[in-house]
Amino acid sequence: MADLPASVALHEEGPREGFQIESSDIPTARKVAFIEALAETGVRQIDCVSFVNPQRVPGMADAAEVAAQVRKRPGVRYTGLWLNTKGLMRALETPLDIVGAIRLTASETFCVRNTGMNIAQTIDEQRRWLDVYREKRIPVEWGYVMTAFGCNFEGYIDPAKVVAMVGQVLDLATESEVSLRGVYLADTVGWGTPLSIERGIGAVRERWPDLPIGLHLHDTRGTGLANAYAALRLGVRQFDTTCAGLGGCPFAGHKGAAGNICTEDMVFMCEEMGIATGIDLEKLIECARMAEEIVGHPLPGKVVRGGSLAPYKRQAAAR
Amino acid sequence: MADLPASVALHEEGPREGFQIESSDIPTARKVAFIEALAETGVRQIDCVSFVNPQRVPGMADAAEVAAQVRKRPGVRYTGLWLNTKGLMRALETPLDIVGAIRLTASETFCVRNTGMNIAQTIDEQRRWLDVYREKRIPVEWGYVMTAFGCNFEGYIDPAKVVAMVGQVLDLATESEVSLRGVYLADTVGWGTPLSIERGIGAVRERWPDLPIGLHLHDTRGTGLANAYAALRLGVRQFDTTCAGLGGCPFAGHKGAAGNICTEDMVFMCEEMGIATGIDLEKLIECARMAEEIVGHPLPGKVVRGGSLAPYKRQAAAR
Repeated sequence: MADLPASVALHEEGPREGFQIESSDIPTARKVAFIEALAETGVRQIDCVSFVNPQRVPGMADAAEVAAQVRKRPGVRYTGLWLNTKGLMRALETPLDIVGAIRLTASETFCVRNTGMNIAQTIDEQRRWLDVYREKRIPVEWGYVMTAFGCNFEGYIDPAKVVAMVGQVLDLATESEVSLRGVYLADTVGWGTPLSIERGIGAVRERWPDLPIGLHLHDTRGTGLANAYAALRLGVRQFDTTCAGLGGCPFAGHKGAAGNICTEDMVFMCEEMGIATGIDLEKLIECARMAEEIVGHPLPGKVVRGGSLAPYKRQAAAR
Repeated sequence: MADLPASVALHEEGPREGFQIESSDIPTARKVAFIEALAETGVRQIDCVSFVNPQRVPGMADAAEVAAQVRKRPGVRYTGLWLNTKGLMRALETPLDIVGAIRLTASETFCVRNTGMNIAQTIDEQRRWLDVYREKRIPVEWGYVMTAFGCNFEGYIDPAKVVAMVGQVLDLATESEVSLRGVYLADTVGWGTPLSIERGIGAVRERWPDLPIGLHLHDTRGTGLANAYAALRLGVRQFDTTCAGLGGCPFAGHKGAAGNICTEDMVFMCEEMGIATGIDLEKLIECARMAEEIVGHPLPGKVVRGGSLAPYKRQAAAR
């Protein structure tokens, strides 16, 4: 199809998204082994850990140890997340590849409830972050607009709000003389459907036709890959994904804890449609199995169970 | 969007698809209660049981009892499946709404491996079925072409083969003076992606622009709802789905046992995109929870865990 991109870049967030909600009993060495295995699949960027309060997120208490022990593979970036300056300082002490971002939220209510700051205050805070990044020579690559497709407090998000926030992100970048790679739209709480994805992307494209767009999608209500397909049709070539759908849990008891779209399911769909991912699906499936062993319960991914089509294609070709 | 249909019809296959692979210890009364609960959601057709050899499919040993005990709700059709004349005779002794079909397969190898008959023999067999349906005044509504998007033996299925099989189905219908409602394309072993779905539907539409098309999709590799969305964009308004994604299992041990696309996930996506389903999502979610209790393990559906957006929309409207 003329509109599908020739290739996509997938940012693997499994280790961070996954282990931050799983048990704190997972040995550091297992987390390290998982990250190292992911690096062998062809993924180019792995979000490894978050530097947060270990009391609140016990699964990340060993963030610094994980970061220190990972044997890096050339050509792969190992990133992390922080929520405050203390977290960034901890991150900078590790061998991780520290990359900054500009993060705003389309829903002011979500913003206030999550951070205590309204949008204007958040913009000021992002300015302070950009000062820090400049001072510490930390590259800034992507902007992010959260709750871009819906918010549990505000409901549907008018694409005009998303456009306004993208505009604010771009203004902040210009102010700081940062050249962004593009802006991510995040479906933070899983409200998106292919239609709202198309509308949101369309509204942004109308203002900035050449701005690369990324998508951060959660599969809370099962529309994740359909949303990704809608975005691929519009030429979007940048997505966050998690191996095995880490970050979510299929058990009824974990209501609402739905992970990002699953990396291997996305790789399968893309490769089958002629979109290059640069990722070895068979190796990635092995990583997904490893992830399930590590967390000790099934994860939502489908290809980890159904397998790729490779054995059948070989069999068919041999007939 | 101009191309999305105003409404869709979903054929609920959960009881049949699901209970035929689950334990044979499920009490008949539970299966009956589940079917009756589904009938309260607005679904218009429920595939309840299959009349098959109870030695081979112990989960269906009580098919006749289930069929006899279900208290039917007016306006809902309660159907069943059979594989041979013996099965049909058993089905006819029950109060079920017996509906016939014309079933062919695009992959000859799949056909032979599954039934021992090649396509020509299968066509003759379908003629014999049509004679039986005529004799017994059993309505025939849909044609089906299985492995329409791929086959584990033959690999990719050329859309030309699908077109040929649709043609055969329509010829059989004409021969028997049956007026079909349309033809289903079935992704029997989960090879489909949005692109191959579009190509297959496109090829059929090129020959028969006004032929209603139905889709029977399996979510083996996670592309189920993305495939459904691709079909919706092409105006397809008829789908088979299963409550909670019954027929599949998230456990690694059940490799490859992937169910149909999940009814409530499909209802969520459709309703959110302005496509009427006639189904009460909240009641359907209750059915999905019931399904998980009955089978005793998590099922793949996402909305059963994430919930609908209704409470958040109410909250947002109240602010």
